[in-house]
Amino acid sequence: MSSTVGSTGEASATRSETHVEVRALMQSLGRAAVAAAADLARASSAAKSRALGLAAAAIRRRSAAVLASNAEDMEQAQRRGLSAPLLDRLKLDGKRVEAMASGLDQIAALPDPIGTVAAHWERPNGLRISRVRVPLGVIGIIYESRPNVTADAGALCLKAGNASILRGGSESQRSNAVIHACLSEALLAADLPAAAIQLVPTSDRAAVGEMLGAMQEYIDVLVPRGGKSLVARVQQEARVPVIGHLEGNCHVYVDRDAELTMARSITLNSKMRRTGVCGAAETLLVDRGCAAAVLPTLIADLIAAGCEVRGDEGARAADPRVRAADEADWYAEYLDAIIALRLVDGVDGAIAHIARYGSAHTEAIVTANAATAERFLARVDSAIVLHNASTQFADGGEFGMGAEIGISTDRFHARGPVGVEQLTSYKYVVQGSGQVRP
Amino acid sequence: MSSTVGSTGEASATRSETHVEVRALMQSLGRAAVAAAADLARASSAAKSRALGLAAAAIRRRSAAVLASNAEDMEQAQRRGLSAPLLDRLKLDGKRVEAMASGLDQIAALPDPIGTVAAHWERPNGLRISRVRVPLGVIGIIYESRPNVTADAGALCLKAGNASILRGGSESQRSNAVIHACLSEALLAADLPAAAIQLVPTSDRAAVGEMLGAMQEYIDVLVPRGGKSLVARVQQEARVPVIGHLEGNCHVYVDRDAELTMARSITLNSKMRRTGVCGAAETLLVDRGCAAAVLPTLIADLIAAGCEVRGDEGARAADPRVRAADEADWYAEYLDAIIALRLVDGVDGAIAHIARYGSAHTEAIVTANAATAERFLARVDSAIVLHNASTQFADGGEFGMGAEIGISTDRFHARGPVGVEQLTSYKYVVQGSGQVRP
Repeated sequence: MSSTVGSTGEASATRSETHVEVRALMQSLGRAAVAAAADLARASSAAKSRALGLAAAAIRRRSAAVLASNAEDMEQAQRRGLSAPLLDRLKLDGKRVEAMASGLDQIAALPDPIGTVAAHWERPNGLRISRVRVPLGVIGIIYESRPNVTADAGALCLKAGNASILRGGSESQRSNAVIHACLSEALLAADLPAAAIQLVPTSDRAAVGEMLGAMQEYIDVLVPRGGKSLVARVQQEARVPVIGHLEGNCHVYVDRDAELTMARSITLNSKMRRTGVCGAAETLLVDRGCAAAVLPTLIADLIAAGCEVRGDEGARAADPRVRAADEADWYAEYLDAIIALRLVDGVDGAIAHIARYGSAHTEAIVTANAATAERFLARVDSAIVLHNASTQFADGGEFGMGAEIGISTDRFHARGPVGVEQLTSYKYVVQGSGQVRP
Repeated sequence: MSSTVGSTGEASATRSETHVEVRALMQSLGRAAVAAAADLARASSAAKSRALGLAAAAIRRRSAAVLASNAEDMEQAQRRGLSAPLLDRLKLDGKRVEAMASGLDQIAALPDPIGTVAAHWERPNGLRISRVRVPLGVIGIIYESRPNVTADAGALCLKAGNASILRGGSESQRSNAVIHACLSEALLAADLPAAAIQLVPTSDRAAVGEMLGAMQEYIDVLVPRGGKSLVARVQQEARVPVIGHLEGNCHVYVDRDAELTMARSITLNSKMRRTGVCGAAETLLVDRGCAAAVLPTLIADLIAAGCEVRGDEGARAADPRVRAADEADWYAEYLDAIIALRLVDGVDGAIAHIARYGSAHTEAIVTANAATAERFLARVDSAIVLHNASTQFADGGEFGMGAEIGISTDRFHARGPVGVEQLTSYKYVVQGSGQVRP
């Protein structure tokens, strides 16, 4: 600890001394994670499922303690003046605690990817080659606000045989600690190493810097979960591979060959079902060839549902309640009841708009024309492209992949929903009978 | 160009002025690559195969020019005092030029991964989901010495629909330029953008720094191909994802239940077939339980084949010609006719030795005991693990994957041989009939 005379702990330690302590702490977490990962790679599916089921039970049993610690976090956050959306993300109630527990049960019930043979073939010389799924190793998760990430992310990593180092936001430190205690208890009860899921016990920001840099020897992959600035910082500074999802500036394109009823329901659902999720539509593109016929109805639906509409001149001509959009609107990820609206020249106009302004997350076309749909699906370069379906299906659960850790907008390793399978690597197992290479 | 009075070009420009020029040059390569990648993503398989076939023909037709430029590179390299192994890597002859051309023909004949459906499933709500292979985008290749990488790497990237930016070693600049001219000519003849495969036209080392950093907006993935220090520098400094292969410190473990004949041929082939490849065995581990029976023969074989043997005490007791190994030998990737030899306590001793000293590349066990083999294959955490086969099978071609760009020792995205399929990403195509999310 600090050597300053009269020091009473961290608060009075000099910056560099604190940093030395944080580094030592993080290095010890790293070493413990690597050791745990070696055990986890060989852990049985039954042991992992058992730990997850026990963790769910522990969270239900200790829900009063979880809620009490969360109330303390909330009180502190209110004193610190956190914004209403951040407070909402931080807040737990009985329903959210139960959702967290049942999320763990669901992950327990997923098939175990580890050891499964993703491909198998035989060579002319008789060698039999299998590509077998193995864990990635140690996964660092850096997240903000939502305490449920502690349970979700730790559980997903565990299911895929990975050790995790969780670094939650300082505002949710107390809630995270109680949730993490439930996970630790369950790991031990299932005879798995407690270090399989570690929570960084300090809110010192230097810990994040350690995960991005000096811990590259221990951490195989980093997953940032949070706002744009957090994800961007991690992608910019990390010395280890990152699975990041940046923003979801998602588009719905209503083609001249769309059925109006379908266009209405898909537009409304894509935008308004939940406005705060990354798969929510942010821009509506309407084919100039059907604008006169569909625009008034689409705009009226949105406004009636409480959505602000910001449009180009064509959109404003269709309804005077549409406010003027500017260039920034085409780039915006509102995550709110606001939509940008633009007329485009057919499917190629939509493709060009999305290529220029989109974030390569999720885009939908509404059309009854198969050739037009095919062109859109092939040419729009996004993680998820949909024909005649809502962008709000951009979700690992809706894809049938079980829980997810986020939607990746990277092209490398994992793109789209990142579920258990995306948290694995593979190795080649080759069976021979004495073959040597000529 | 330089504004220094009396300057006669780059050589006398100040460092910062040169740097500005290199940056501008690299930015323009980056922009051209992104534009080419968009075209390539939609290029037909036929056009890509045609370009590759034409490139092979151009290399055969211009082989005299390729050899003449290579002779100039060799002359310069000899003057600069390059080592014999580097000179050997740089040197082209008629046979190597033909191998380069037929490599292009082979890549042309591979199946096109782009647009193939890697997985398809249907959801209870009727949504049909496909995971479709798409290119990664723009791939930067940084390599040394071997001019054939210009053809191999450019062709592999093209086959997978990626634009490539090739930065070869300054020592092979002239050879690379002629080979690249053959590729450019073929791209244009096949109606593909010439910028699909670009060669960095300067040997200024600042170009590498640009690829590692300032070009992150343009480059999706970097692939370093060369010595340990190059790969380590790229992995350390790159701001974009890297597919790297570090060293191959490969092991052969001869178990007490091995057949002696098989143990002899696999040991000899793993070490001596070619000593300079990353799949060559560097350490032989022999089960203490069979050492007396097999060691003298295994050592005599190796020494008779011209291999130096460096062993622990047990190995030296078996044959006085064995020199003493020290700790560094267990870590060494000799890439030469030298092998380290150690006695271990059964399969678990071998697993522990490999976990401690190995580079997670390729390891083989020789045993007739299925349970022992199973234990080794499951517990050794390397990209490739083999039972009763030579480590020299660590090769994309031998795996039936066609040409490869290297063997990845990373766990992320691609592990083991990196062929055409590993140079792709994917997207999800979702077909609906009006579904909205409840």
